[in-house]
Amino acid sequence: MKRLVKIGEYETGLKNNICDVPGVLVGHVTIMDDVNKTGVTAILPHSGNLFREKVVAASDVFNGFGKSIGLVQLDELGTIETPILLSNALSASKVANSLISYMLKDNKDIGVTTSTVNPLVLECNDGSINQTQNRVITENDVFDAINNASDDFLEGGVGAGTGMKCNGFKGGIGSSSRIIKIKDKEYVLGVLVNSNYGASNGSELIFNGRKLGGLIKDYNLAQEEDKGSIVIVIATNAPLDNRQLKRIAKRAELGVARTGSYGGNGSGDIMVAFSTENKVSHSPNYMEENVIRFSDSYLNTFFRATVDATEEAILNSMLHAKELRSYNGTLYKSLMEYRSLFEDLLEK
Amino acid sequence: MKRLVKIGEYETGLKNNICDVPGVLVGHVTIMDDVNKTGVTAILPHSGNLFREKVVAASDVFNGFGKSIGLVQLDELGTIETPILLSNALSASKVANSLISYMLKDNKDIGVTTSTVNPLVLECNDGSINQTQNRVITENDVFDAINNASDDFLEGGVGAGTGMKCNGFKGGIGSSSRIIKIKDKEYVLGVLVNSNYGASNGSELIFNGRKLGGLIKDYNLAQEEDKGSIVIVIATNAPLDNRQLKRIAKRAELGVARTGSYGGNGSGDIMVAFSTENKVSHSPNYMEENVIRFSDSYLNTFFRATVDATEEAILNSMLHAKELRSYNGTLYKSLMEYRSLFEDLLEK
Amino acid sequence: MKRLVKIGEYETGLKNNICDVPGVLVGHVTIMDDVNKTGVTAILPHSGNLFREKVVAASDVFNGFGKSIGLVQLDELGTIETPILLSNALSASKVANSLISYMLKDNKDIGVTTSTVNPLVLECNDGSINQTQNRVITENDVFDAINNASDDFLEGGVGAGTGMKCNGFKGGIGSSSRIIKIKDKEYVLGVLVNSNYGASNGSELIFNGRKLGGLIKDYNLAQEEDKGSIVIVIATNAPLDNRQLKRIAKRAELGVARTGSYGGNGSGDIMVAFSTENKVSHSPNYMEENVIRFSDSYLNTFFRATVDATEEAILNSMLHAKELRSYNGTLYKSLMEYRSLFEDLLEK
Amino acid sequence: MKRLVKIGEYETGLKNNICDVPGVLVGHVTIMDDVNKTGVTAILPHSGNLFREKVVAASDVFNGFGKSIGLVQLDELGTIETPILLSNALSASKVANSLISYMLKDNKDIGVTTSTVNPLVLECNDGSINQTQNRVITENDVFDAINNASDDFLEGGVGAGTGMKCNGFKGGIGSSSRIIKIKDKEYVLGVLVNSNYGASNGSELIFNGRKLGGLIKDYNLAQEEDKGSIVIVIATNAPLDNRQLKRIAKRAELGVARTGSYGGNGSGDIMVAFSTENKVSHSPNYMEENVIRFSDSYLNTFFRATVDATEEAILNSMLHAKELRSYNGTLYKSLMEYRSLFEDLLEK
Repeated sequence: MKRLVKIGEYETGLKNNICDVPGVLVGHVTIMDDVNKTGVTAILPHSGNLFREKVVAASDVFNGFGKSIGLVQLDELGTIETPILLSNALSASKVANSLISYMLKDNKDIGVTTSTVNPLVLECNDGSINQTQNRVITENDVFDAINNASDDFLEGGVGAGTGMKCNGFKGGIGSSSRIIKIKDKEYVLGVLVNSNYGASNGSELIFNGRKLGGLIKDYNLAQEEDKGSIVIVIATNAPLDNRQLKRIAKRAELGVARTGSYGGNGSGDIMVAFSTENKVSHSPNYMEENVIRFSDSYLNTFFRATVDATEEAILNSMLHAKELRSYNGTLYKSLMEYRSLFEDLLEK
Repeated sequence: MKRLVKIGEYETGLKNNICDVPGVLVGHVTIMDDVNKTGVTAILPHSGNLFREKVVAASDVFNGFGKSIGLVQLDELGTIETPILLSNALSASKVANSLISYMLKDNKDIGVTTSTVNPLVLECNDGSINQTQNRVITENDVFDAINNASDDFLEGGVGAGTGMKCNGFKGGIGSSSRIIKIKDKEYVLGVLVNSNYGASNGSELIFNGRKLGGLIKDYNLAQEEDKGSIVIVIATNAPLDNRQLKRIAKRAELGVARTGSYGGNGSGDIMVAFSTENKVSHSPNYMEENVIRFSDSYLNTFFRATVDATEEAILNSMLHAKELRSYNGTLYKSLMEYRSLFEDLLEK
Repeated sequence: MKRLVKIGEYETGLKNNICDVPGVLVGHVTIMDDVNKTGVTAILPHSGNLFREKVVAASDVFNGFGKSIGLVQLDELGTIETPILLSNALSASKVANSLISYMLKDNKDIGVTTSTVNPLVLECNDGSINQTQNRVITENDVFDAINNASDDFLEGGVGAGTGMKCNGFKGGIGSSSRIIKIKDKEYVLGVLVNSNYGASNGSELIFNGRKLGGLIKDYNLAQEEDKGSIVIVIATNAPLDNRQLKRIAKRAELGVARTGSYGGNGSGDIMVAFSTENKVSHSPNYMEENVIRFSDSYLNTFFRATVDATEEAILNSMLHAKELRSYNGTLYKSLMEYRSLFEDLLEK
Repeated sequence: MKRLVKIGEYETGLKNNICDVPGVLVGHVTIMDDVNKTGVTAILPHSGNLFREKVVAASDVFNGFGKSIGLVQLDELGTIETPILLSNALSASKVANSLISYMLKDNKDIGVTTSTVNPLVLECNDGSINQTQNRVITENDVFDAINNASDDFLEGGVGAGTGMKCNGFKGGIGSSSRIIKIKDKEYVLGVLVNSNYGASNGSELIFNGRKLGGLIKDYNLAQEEDKGSIVIVIATNAPLDNRQLKRIAKRAELGVARTGSYGGNGSGDIMVAFSTENKVSHSPNYMEENVIRFSDSYLNTFFRATVDATEEAILNSMLHAKELRSYNGTLYKSLMEYRSLFEDLLEK
């Protein structure tokens, strides 16, 4: 894939998205009519039965003004046991309920002879663009997003990104990846964001180091109350444990900062990180098993990769997003319309 | 109300339940047929519009193996802005979605011209008694629980307590309150629990200091995997802030410990505490307002009241609960059947 | 060793103390004259160079009204890299400085060619018994406590326990251990406490389930402001990771609760747990290594062992402690003087 | 004071440092000889007896690879009760012990008839420049730093900043402030940093948006293991509570991110924020008092001010620092030597 903007020195994976991490799949369902402009995005840490084979994971809440579901158990047990669904704020509960239905389908014992399931749903508020009270995302939509998940996907205003705005421009799904070389080994780290934060007049936006704020003069969106958020999912095939993944998850916010965010009051910033290695069996019949432990002494490259890939994923989300008129008539432009302001900072 | 068991030295309020805290209301909806034995319980911190007049609050997660919804924002902003709903684990998301519907009814601006709403739902897994995959709790049930809320309520196997078991006996909703006298002032603290934890053979149960384990000999429930949890809501009319309420919330677990719990792996222990004082306006048009601050130097009585009232609320939940046969035929007895083992420890 | 009181069903190790965990050593230095009644206790997770071979660890702060040193880094990196020192509140910093001196002796590269060292010091305030402003613990005392550490040790008013009181009685160092049998394997878990909390008139004390409060009538210590704390160290040879050890550490407070504590405002409750397995090398020249991972599905026995052993360790601390007159003349009696109140609850 | 570099749109206070917050005082003691190049910096939230009149405060640990002392109690009680001392990593404990001595001088009841005192010491490792194992900072030095504190102070390689390096250049103390205007009111927010992080070849440094990494070609410091940290103190005269100050404290890291940091493994990032309003009395004889509460709805300007002032304070720390040769002969240059690379980004 052609790279749009290069943040940092590390190489990207082949697709420059989270699916460069082997086994990770992503699927979208987009809902678009006159008033409903929303959707759901599913990230599958692997293609098997996640309830039976959980992945090691952690979350970090930089700013908890948000309605994400499932973080309490994720933190306690250090695992993810469902696909990770991204959706809008008012639909998060409904989507979580649909995700439970999905999990019950393949795991008849949930809540009967084994524990219940912890659905993981991250959300941003798309109420500026979408008539969000409608909560139109159905169980079928959720099933489709999961079932359609594949090893490549579109970015911008698709899936959960459909109704998102970012710094006053059209925002949504963005992704980026990094190849991490240490000694003679290679690891992959991938980031996927749903971008929906920032001042509605673009005044805070930093593009690859350049403060665009003062430069965007003709774009006068009615200033509206910040109703944003950004959610970030980080995947890696390095065998990191819960504590280390939490350290990784925290660094993602530094990439957000570099695009101009100051973590606004009304804009939840929530991260989830997982490893595809050292999977965790549900109710194993053994106490001990061999796993690989990664040394914190070598985490710096992962930290840097996370910060860089997050910044790039956010810019990608805006560069890929096409303009969209909200249900009540406001036009959210594509940042690409203003590419003359940062043309020299793009990849050729 | 006649007090069943007296824990600690402090007096209770008139009703010995959470509604002794002025303004707090509780409502139940119970669902009971051959296979569905579940329900929902609503706790209203006040009878007004909670989205407009939020209450100061905090949560504490002693054991996060649970699916409670809404804690992330509660911790960030230190407020509750909806009724607190208790329900079962697999229904939590559906109930949260219904709670959003309820809030939208009276607040048309949510997600349109103001921020979205953070539904607060606490859950325990009732899968031992209830055919829980059915998720039969409807939006109507949620509305009814809220609308029926009043200043007194039943305890035991009602509302969200319908399908709960505790230490192998029938569990569910229990409550207790304490009058806190400091100098010439009186405060009230109330606790409501939904009890659903403990070994299924009662072997760990401590009743008012007495270890009942060895004494219960004829009650041989098939040992089943722990699929429990306990959720605890604490209310007070003392003007405590978010940090102080978190200190209070943490103490509730000490009361759980005194009934024999060791915080089992599969049994989430989650607390929420709120104050009815110093309410927080949604989007106020002022930066500063006068509030009352309570000194930590006088918190000890609140800590002790919390521990005592939690222990008593748990015992009440079991003493009030009547025996119930689960959907698959297991009889969960009432602890009252064994009152000869602790008759001397009950109030006369 | 003769067991004094039996809490729970699990067997203890041979010594019924933390040194039953293979490799763990404990040493005391006791300082006792007319006005200085204090000391230091060292717990060595292993006898080698801890900076080079760190142990996996976690901490939990149930009540942070305390001055413990070193928890920030312990939580971030999940390791302990020095002996764990217990001392008094005003001496914690001086003792930490002495511990740095000790570490520098054997690790000349600290702060020169490698990172600095994170001293770990837990404290309780012994100001009721000891003229604590004097801060008489010297570097020699710290070195001696570490160098004298062996695989058995005294309990009661020795080492860091010298000036401690508990529920109005003489408190101090107590310990207990549990053998944990799962399938065909055995693990050991050991707990060491420094007990220094509780109402000064014994009114809250619960002894093996019996509320002693009302029974102690002739012991009227002047009620003094609570200036307490309890610190708890938990060791195991099970290969638990940082997240799991944190879950263990949290459970210790449940044992404290069973002795009557309600987590008083002025009484810090701080826990540290470590595993002697899966040691972590300082600056390894590899990224990945094989370790053993323990399944959360089998943690319940560890949780229960922690709660029981903590309760027993606290009772042991009081049963072993001899009466002591404080620097200003108050006599802190031994709980053993009141053994007629709980003789039937002791081991024969 | 002439402003060196302007970050963000808000005005600074008159001195553009933390002492623009009324009542805040800062004092340095600098130790400089052939091998010892270190010092201590004291920040006094007010000039009175801090133990008697505590300030409301919070901390945030973005990266806990550090040895700061006193955060546990600060988080539990939400107050600071001593001057805040900044020093080097290996001296933190010794400095904390000296700070206790200072507090005892004016508060004879500490540890006798009232609780002990919680010394607050933040640290960075100056081992690259200072022969840090010597721990030469004396009690006199600590007393002098506190006693000399005044309402203005030097920045750069002074006090605790003496031995610091930042991105391979000389680092140390930097400060900046912002005037926050909301409606008809003005508040002040001030930030003070001790900067000591970043790659030793300057490759990560971002100066006011410009990535200097590729531009600094002739400066080849031997690459050394990262032994850094940054500590940040934020003061405001807005009446923010503990929860709100924690939100503020977290935002400071976003300013760090904008200077190029990715939160390196070996570089602790620790923040403390306090308000000079709503002071907290030690052992008050009342339960309730009137205080001012600030609405979260108006926090955005504080968040932005924190991020901007932190970025500017870091740049100031480097711009003010003069070159210094380390005890072992390495020359750490002043960033000012490279001003041609960013001359156009400085204030005229």
